Amino acid sequence: MKISHSFDSGAIEVLSLDDPGNIRLRLRADNAAEFHQWFHFRVQGAAGRSLRMVFENAAEAAYPDGWPGYRCVASYDRRSWFRVADTRYEDGQLIVEHAPEHDSVYYAYFEPYSYERHLDLVGWAEMSPFAQADSLGWTVEGREIDRIVVGRATPGRRPVWVIARQHPGETMAEWFIEGLLERLLDAADPVARRIRERAVLHIVPNMNPDGALHGNLRTNAAGRNLNREWRAPDEQASPEVFHVRRAMEATGCDLFLDIHGDEALPYVFFSTAEEVPGFTAETAARQARFVAAFAAASPDFQTDEGYKPGRFGEELLTLASKWVAHRFGCVSLTLEMPFKDNANMPDGHAGWSSVRSKRMGAAMLNAILAHLEGA
Amino acid sequence: MKISHSFDSGAIEVLSLDDPGNIRLRLRADNAAEFHQWFHFRVQGAAGRSLRMVFENAAEAAYPDGWPGYRCVASYDRRSWFRVADTRYEDGQLIVEHAPEHDSVYYAYFEPYSYERHLDLVGWAEMSPFAQADSLGWTVEGREIDRIVVGRATPGRRPVWVIARQHPGETMAEWFIEGLLERLLDAADPVARRIRERAVLHIVPNMNPDGALHGNLRTNAAGRNLNREWRAPDEQASPEVFHVRRAMEATGCDLFLDIHGDEALPYVFFSTAEEVPGFTAETAARQARFVAAFAAASPDFQTDEGYKPGRFGEELLTLASKWVAHRFGCVSLTLEMPFKDNANMPDGHAGWSSVRSKRMGAAMLNAILAHLEGA
Amino acid sequence: MKISHSFDSGAIEVLSLDDPGNIRLRLRADNAAEFHQWFHFRVQGAAGRSLRMVFENAAEAAYPDGWPGYRCVASYDRRSWFRVADTRYEDGQLIVEHAPEHDSVYYAYFEPYSYERHLDLVGWAEMSPFAQADSLGWTVEGREIDRIVVGRATPGRRPVWVIARQHPGETMAEWFIEGLLERLLDAADPVARRIRERAVLHIVPNMNPDGALHGNLRTNAAGRNLNREWRAPDEQASPEVFHVRRAMEATGCDLFLDIHGDEALPYVFFSTAEEVPGFTAETAARQARFVAAFAAASPDFQTDEGYKPGRFGEELLTLASKWVAHRFGCVSLTLEMPFKDNANMPDGHAGWSSVRSKRMGAAMLNAILAHLEGA
Amino acid sequence: MKISHSFDSGAIEVLSLDDPGNIRLRLRADNAAEFHQWFHFRVQGAAGRSLRMVFENAAEAAYPDGWPGYRCVASYDRRSWFRVADTRYEDGQLIVEHAPEHDSVYYAYFEPYSYERHLDLVGWAEMSPFAQADSLGWTVEGREIDRIVVGRATPGRRPVWVIARQHPGETMAEWFIEGLLERLLDAADPVARRIRERAVLHIVPNMNPDGALHGNLRTNAAGRNLNREWRAPDEQASPEVFHVRRAMEATGCDLFLDIHGDEALPYVFFSTAEEVPGFTAETAARQARFVAAFAAASPDFQTDEGYKPGRFGEELLTLASKWVAHRFGCVSLTLEMPFKDNANMPDGHAGWSSVRSKRMGAAMLNAILAHLEGA
Ligand SMILES: [Ca+2]
Ligand SMILES: [Ca+2]
Ligand SMILES: [Ca+2]
Ligand SMILES: [Ca+2]
Repeated sequence: MKISHSFDSGAIEVLSLDDPGNIRLRLRADNAAEFHQWFHFRVQGAAGRSLRMVFENAAEAAYPDGWPGYRCVASYDRRSWFRVADTRYEDGQLIVEHAPEHDSVYYAYFEPYSYERHLDLVGWAEMSPFAQADSLGWTVEGREIDRIVVGRATPGRRPVWVIARQHPGETMAEWFIEGLLERLLDAADPVARRIRERAVLHIVPNMNPDGALHGNLRTNAAGRNLNREWRAPDEQASPEVFHVRRAMEATGCDLFLDIHGDEALPYVFFSTAEEVPGFTAETAARQARFVAAFAAASPDFQTDEGYKPGRFGEELLTLASKWVAHRFGCVSLTLEMPFKDNANMPDGHAGWSSVRSKRMGAAMLNAILAHLEGA
Repeated sequence: MKISHSFDSGAIEVLSLDDPGNIRLRLRADNAAEFHQWFHFRVQGAAGRSLRMVFENAAEAAYPDGWPGYRCVASYDRRSWFRVADTRYEDGQLIVEHAPEHDSVYYAYFEPYSYERHLDLVGWAEMSPFAQADSLGWTVEGREIDRIVVGRATPGRRPVWVIARQHPGETMAEWFIEGLLERLLDAADPVARRIRERAVLHIVPNMNPDGALHGNLRTNAAGRNLNREWRAPDEQASPEVFHVRRAMEATGCDLFLDIHGDEALPYVFFSTAEEVPGFTAETAARQARFVAAFAAASPDFQTDEGYKPGRFGEELLTLASKWVAHRFGCVSLTLEMPFKDNANMPDGHAGWSSVRSKRMGAAMLNAILAHLEGA
Repeated sequence: MKISHSFDSGAIEVLSLDDPGNIRLRLRADNAAEFHQWFHFRVQGAAGRSLRMVFENAAEAAYPDGWPGYRCVASYDRRSWFRVADTRYEDGQLIVEHAPEHDSVYYAYFEPYSYERHLDLVGWAEMSPFAQADSLGWTVEGREIDRIVVGRATPGRRPVWVIARQHPGETMAEWFIEGLLERLLDAADPVARRIRERAVLHIVPNMNPDGALHGNLRTNAAGRNLNREWRAPDEQASPEVFHVRRAMEATGCDLFLDIHGDEALPYVFFSTAEEVPGFTAETAARQARFVAAFAAASPDFQTDEGYKPGRFGEELLTLASKWVAHRFGCVSLTLEMPFKDNANMPDGHAGWSSVRSKRMGAAMLNAILAHLEGA
Repeated sequence: MKISHSFDSGAIEVLSLDDPGNIRLRLRADNAAEFHQWFHFRVQGAAGRSLRMVFENAAEAAYPDGWPGYRCVASYDRRSWFRVADTRYEDGQLIVEHAPEHDSVYYAYFEPYSYERHLDLVGWAEMSPFAQADSLGWTVEGREIDRIVVGRATPGRRPVWVIARQHPGETMAEWFIEGLLERLLDAADPVARRIRERAVLHIVPNMNPDGALHGNLRTNAAGRNLNREWRAPDEQASPEVFHVRRAMEATGCDLFLDIHGDEALPYVFFSTAEEVPGFTAETAARQARFVAAFAAASPDFQTDEGYKPGRFGEELLTLASKWVAHRFGCVSLTLEMPFKDNANMPDGHAGWSSVRSKRMGAAMLNAILAHLEGA
């Protein structure tokens, strides 16, 4: 039996693999920061054995509240992922028990989204008559900050920005973008057609490709949490934010959506902008319209559960959607999808999944159109 | 050069084929009735020639208003269809001018939907864990009246009926059903999931397979316009309505949708039930909610254009959606999609199309869910 | 419970359907001739029941030797077909016992190949840069006799003719053509590329579309067995042969392949041309090379089993491949594939199948190339 | 304009990007050795500009003979690759002139095959009922040495080994394996079925995943040329060979195929085993049969052009196929495919390509079966 993790977003520390019934693991930290939570590894040679995998340092994870109710995802072919029912959090340890049916099996915190798939997505979009891909600058490690622009910038078309995966371990965010783009570039869909006529969309499918490749949960290659860098991004340490923010200044922003995953809450929800200084009644009304349209489009979205007011304290304006709300006075929202499941519509087999995230991205277009067609 | 039409829904009369620049054609009547409008044929051996095809009896068509603004559809591979720009209605004749790029080319009134594809659709649905296919009885010529049931009939689940293609030449109606079913049987889509929990859907993808195969516009094999048979269907002459109506009596009906195409109006619209005797304020409110939800889901739908009041006169209660509204007191609507295009969102290349009809069917689920979640 | 057959190639007579455990059926004759063997029908409403279907007149079939060792094919979705293990021939009756898992199930003599699929195949080929589709004339009922020409006719390129499905119930013949064409039109396959440089291929995927649609086993709409019409085809009664033969006279023929299925023998084999008057030693050598190359390319092909000499008696030169051998002095072969299975490489689940027929068609290209590269 | 290469197999050094008409580049060396030749990079922001890219150190490449007649490959979407016609070797520099149609374009030495795709291939094979995946050990950097075993090891089944991509920049070798596996795991292909009955195949799709990910041409992460390590592999520095060789000792070897690409020769050819000490007449006959069967199966293969005798000198037995020939006395061959094109069947658009390599892998099965069915 072997465990390997030298692949895209692979991350685990193996303490002991002697006994399949007591495999001792540790969550690995981000490459340059002390956040632990993401894992992704492959077990070889375990077909038919009953594995018991213990993540010893689960209690030291960035979000220990992420473990109760959580179930590990697994796949044999890297395409079809399922939840491992026997996942539990006990005495500060995450325990996953599984008897794989094949010799080669992958376990992960959530369905991965590789950099290769990212580049394929950008290449695919580039071939659409409705989109163009460009690069806004370099990441810390010299990767492109890919932007997909949908719709030509003609007078009267409003600039909409959608960014995803500032936190690289929140892969559902890029699955969401994939679903959004597939619909947005559909020649026949009337919602997509109308949006393309009324707006120019600037889409950054992956704000943090370095961190994603490293298998980081929250930070870029320099150890920065990008979603705390918006007030004063550093060209060296947080170039991903620096360049995107600069591009936003050039285009202006009429609507901003920042796509995330939340480790703890088993719901899809927005973190809204009421607490942002200068938030007006007019923006509040626009925000409400956007939220209502999204609720109408997707029953997986809800507004009862979410973050408590004051959660971000002093850091408020360092967050992307809050900074944008403040700077541009526009509707600006953070979408959170669960790592666990939507407790209102649970799926025993898959939990929250790549496909459900894609459906969410497609449904978001209805809300974007409602926004554009509002006053 | 040859013209053939001995295939599924093939229909044309060839008067003269001597001169490619002056091909004389006649619209063929339904097999047992005097409606003319549908055509579907294949031209062989015309690559690179400039064809001028004249449909001499276009003025005698069932809907002469269907010709102004109409453009013929064409395809080389029967998969990808496009509009022929040089289509015009002049002096009571429909004239189509086209220089095909390949030797084998198909022309049709609208993108065909074959009986083989219909049976494949039913077979595909049958394999879904969410659906079951059965047959409600025989058509005049001994074909099955296929019904797809989605969702198990447990107490509290409301019966929803969706039927299509009473008028067999309105193929967009079955493309609509295909789009609706693909979404409805999606394991991940939250709208579909919630509908499956709250309703039992009875879907008849093709009310008139005999007429469809014959290439009829409006009637079944016995020459009956099925959408005038609902008050008193005849087991011999209109068994398609007879059996479906009987099945509806058995299940009850909480929502009814009858999917059609309209030859003349370049819009997607509902024919609603206000004129039905006994139409209540409560049903009116429910109908309004349904209509509003559909408008929110699909910009291709609109409510400004549609039929004039009184259009159906004495026949009112012989129409499916009117009879159902009267009998069951539920929201009951006829959806009309254009043969031409949606003039509010025209598509120069494809006009109204199979794919746009499918998107419409998918969007309808949002309205169905709004209906089910209403009081 | 219902049985229907009003669809492409549907054929059965239902005597009694009262008792699922004793369903009485009769093989239906060809539409204008007394051949019985093909069947294709759909049973509705039988999920979970144990069906026992008795074909009472099996002993009167065209090939009663076809029944021993035969297993009926079945499908729920019309895509994936499997063999019904409990098929047996007893006391002159064919008995099929099956407990379907779904309400809608199709049974057939062999995997059908519909006219819609045929037209799609021609349309697909037409879009290839390497092929052109044309029509050689009309069938009895006014369908096109579709020919696909691969490779442009330039000096030195040898004319190769491949025809299939003279006997319309031998659907494996058109599956074979589909497999052959998919490889032949592959831009990357070196065998296909070289063939396209050295030959012009004239491919008739379906010699008998009328009979195919009717669900005939052996004859066209006028009741003629096309493979007995080659010496003196009649423009009215066997136009399919009349027109193809005329086209061959125009192009000449350097290699001829006629694709069939055999009801009785569980092997893939050739009916060769030794008995044809004037068969030379040189042609014998060429024929031997072709046969050897095919054997090397496909282990499903063999030469031990086949027809006995003298089988065709006086009719010899009325058969396509014999007439062609005589007329053009070229290698001219009839390929026979089994309805049952290849007894040398049996497949318990699928028996002989559409996919195996396609692989055979692909492998045939190796033999064609060997022929073209021979002296 | 930007050039990036921080992705799977990315490799280039950018000297100057100031002038699109004079972009100065250098081929980067392998990560731990002085071989230069492979390149793979992405240019951003150059749509519509005329690029002139000069690889200054082309003359210092591992195979300068690789440049005359070579054309660079390019792609916009990473799926569809084409050759850049304006590629030439002048004064020791490789010059590529191209005006990209999209802003994002990739250039490479040959169509890449990523580690993600490799893992997908292994995962896909694992799901086949005919295959099992396991790992033979670790690479230098801790990746799995994936082996796919096809056919169960029962008495009488002969062990066949196929390995690929010892030289990681020879990506056509893994495309070849993909084509071979797709056919080998086909349930219907008779060649595959018979092979699965007669042999156990041990397939190593990528001997050098570390080097592949680094964008190396010839060496592993420790700088070793694996195809010079077979006489005495080092568990630390060449574990890839060490572990595979050990596994071969365990299974024995009846046939060995090592898949490569050749930089200079525009042909597909074998490097055979005549020079190996102890090569017998019997093995020579078997080798000849294998070669003849492969030639019959694929016109892209030829035997006129190839390496000169004595090419490997003293190193002979350090090469995989030579060492295996010597150790196991079996047919043991190195297959070489071109980076350029097959000069006998050139393809102006694609040159030698991924798809043609796949067809080659599929065709190899005919030769493997001929080998197994020989005495
Ligand atoms: Ca987050
Ligand atoms: Ca209608
Ligand atoms: Ca036959
Ligand atoms: Ca090599």
